[in-house]
Amino acid sequence: MEKITVYGAGSWGTALGYVLAQNGHDILLWSHRAEQAEEINRHSNERYLKGIKLPESLKATSSMEEAVRHADVHVLAVPTKAMRDVSAEIAALLDKPSLFVHVSKGIEPDSQKRVSELIREEIPEKWIKDLVVLSGPSHAEEVVLEHPTTVTAACENTHSAERVQDMFMNHYFRVYTNTDVIGVEIGGALKNIIALAVGITDGLGLGDNAKAAIMTRGLAEIARLGVKMGATPLTFSGLTGVGDLIVTCTSQHSRNWRAGNMLGKGKSLEEVLAEMGMVVEGIRTTKAAHQMAKRYEVPMPITEALYSVLFENVPTDEAAGHLMGRMKKNEMEDLIDLL
Amino acid sequence: MEKITVYGAGSWGTALGYVLAQNGHDILLWSHRAEQAEEINRHSNERYLKGIKLPESLKATSSMEEAVRHADVHVLAVPTKAMRDVSAEIAALLDKPSLFVHVSKGIEPDSQKRVSELIREEIPEKWIKDLVVLSGPSHAEEVVLEHPTTVTAACENTHSAERVQDMFMNHYFRVYTNTDVIGVEIGGALKNIIALAVGITDGLGLGDNAKAAIMTRGLAEIARLGVKMGATPLTFSGLTGVGDLIVTCTSQHSRNWRAGNMLGKGKSLEEVLAEMGMVVEGIRTTKAAHQMAKRYEVPMPITEALYSVLFENVPTDEAAGHLMGRMKKNEMEDLIDLL
Repeated sequence: MEKITVYGAGSWGTALGYVLAQNGHDILLWSHRAEQAEEINRHSNERYLKGIKLPESLKATSSMEEAVRHADVHVLAVPTKAMRDVSAEIAALLDKPSLFVHVSKGIEPDSQKRVSELIREEIPEKWIKDLVVLSGPSHAEEVVLEHPTTVTAACENTHSAERVQDMFMNHYFRVYTNTDVIGVEIGGALKNIIALAVGITDGLGLGDNAKAAIMTRGLAEIARLGVKMGATPLTFSGLTGVGDLIVTCTSQHSRNWRAGNMLGKGKSLEEVLAEMGMVVEGIRTTKAAHQMAKRYEVPMPITEALYSVLFENVPTDEAAGHLMGRMKKNEMEDLIDLL
Repeated sequence: MEKITVYGAGSWGTALGYVLAQNGHDILLWSHRAEQAEEINRHSNERYLKGIKLPESLKATSSMEEAVRHADVHVLAVPTKAMRDVSAEIAALLDKPSLFVHVSKGIEPDSQKRVSELIREEIPEKWIKDLVVLSGPSHAEEVVLEHPTTVTAACENTHSAERVQDMFMNHYFRVYTNTDVIGVEIGGALKNIIALAVGITDGLGLGDNAKAAIMTRGLAEIARLGVKMGATPLTFSGLTGVGDLIVTCTSQHSRNWRAGNMLGKGKSLEEVLAEMGMVVEGIRTTKAAHQMAKRYEVPMPITEALYSVLFENVPTDEAAGHLMGRMKKNEMEDLIDLL
């Protein structure tokens, strides 16, 4: 049994708390809102996991001090945007080295830092025993229904990845290990860009053939960038690459897909954001990826098309038409860059 | 302008005829049924492409002699099961070398031959100028609505692939070239197995997370077999690999997915086949792949699970449970075999 705190009581943080509590760990869920913590202590979190009865043993708090004191293992499940602040708050209260896990799928614009890099900038090295990324094709809504789900725990140190694997693994939640942290973080973050683009494609009514084309070419451009950054090409063929891309682009649960879909149907970015009421990671990630494509000199036509829609007011149908027109004639020209 | 005959007036053969006629070629569509040829000459093919008005310039015949005499380019669009017979009939009437294209996604059970191998066994080498495979994520129903579609033309001889690219390419139908014939044929044929498996997963109501897991692991096992047979690993990351897998596993148009879905909901194989009324390539391909996995000593757990359902009367839920249980712990163990 491990003593674990999960920071962030959105749908994913709560679902992970559900799994860990069921697995018999001593688990505390931290929310920045006192009412939400109280609701979870009454075994529900209606806004994020409608209709689900949470395990009795899943306790919540809004006290950061209580949260930090509780844990040997800290699981960070806040949006990328909040990651620095929450990490700094935790850091101020730490008094021993512990294991960190993060489950956030984003890249910080401007700094272009991966989430594990943000955390390491905010929490002193002496307090980080190890940092593991947990990622993969996993809608929270299905995990709490105990539908079969597979994810990857990535860390340069295999022993730490295996400790996280043991914490989470059960009959419906299967965890694989991987040592390619960069590949897992880049795949998880950048698939949200492709999900936005596919949402637009669907919103424009372009059909399943076009959708498959965007997903295939999208995976290729993500992998191209990732490999330049030091990732293993094969990671993009795994659960955190193609697996997460598939689930994010083809499921109605996906916020990024839904946001794209509304854009494709003609809504403005402001209207979409107002209507969603939850974080759409892909929008900020598009900005970061646009900058990274320049920095690493990697052609990323889908990212660029999406960037022009989100930040340069290019109409969605114009961007889509432009994208179809500029595709290369030899498929391998693109893919060959990966190896 | 090319003189082309398309053999097979099912949905895909007719859709390709539609594209070629629109592109201004002199095109003849061969059907083995006289009434169907007559219907196409009246500009419709209701059973296969409901509600679509075919181009006036798309002519059809049920005379094999007329069909063969007409063409410099022969496009074979019959099911894998009929490929030997149709090829032999064409061979008997040929009097000059010409270009062949096939668009069939299957493997012959027992012989374990790819479609291009079947054709080369039936048509003497002297009559085959070249043989090009056209494959990719492309539902016929969307092509005739002129929705954007991308496919790959594969041939060891790049000039012949480019001739086929020029024939088919237009503003909504984009053709890439590739030289990896084995990879394109294996990807196209074996994704039907994964589509059947995903259909079962959906039929059992296991959710989108499980679906993404099966697709990811399925792609890995297809690639593993393909590479052992001589394919380029990268082809499985392209349009005819992951692209076609996505469209076949996530679209309601897909026959293989629909057949799997009915199996998952508890129907017997006999009931499913009776209800479909069209060829479900994946069923025969599962038998072939089961044999190939043995021959090439490649672990293919999803193929084996599906084989046990289709041919050994194992209940779908038992096969799915068994499959989840046997997955490996280290994701890279599986993927690493690819390179």
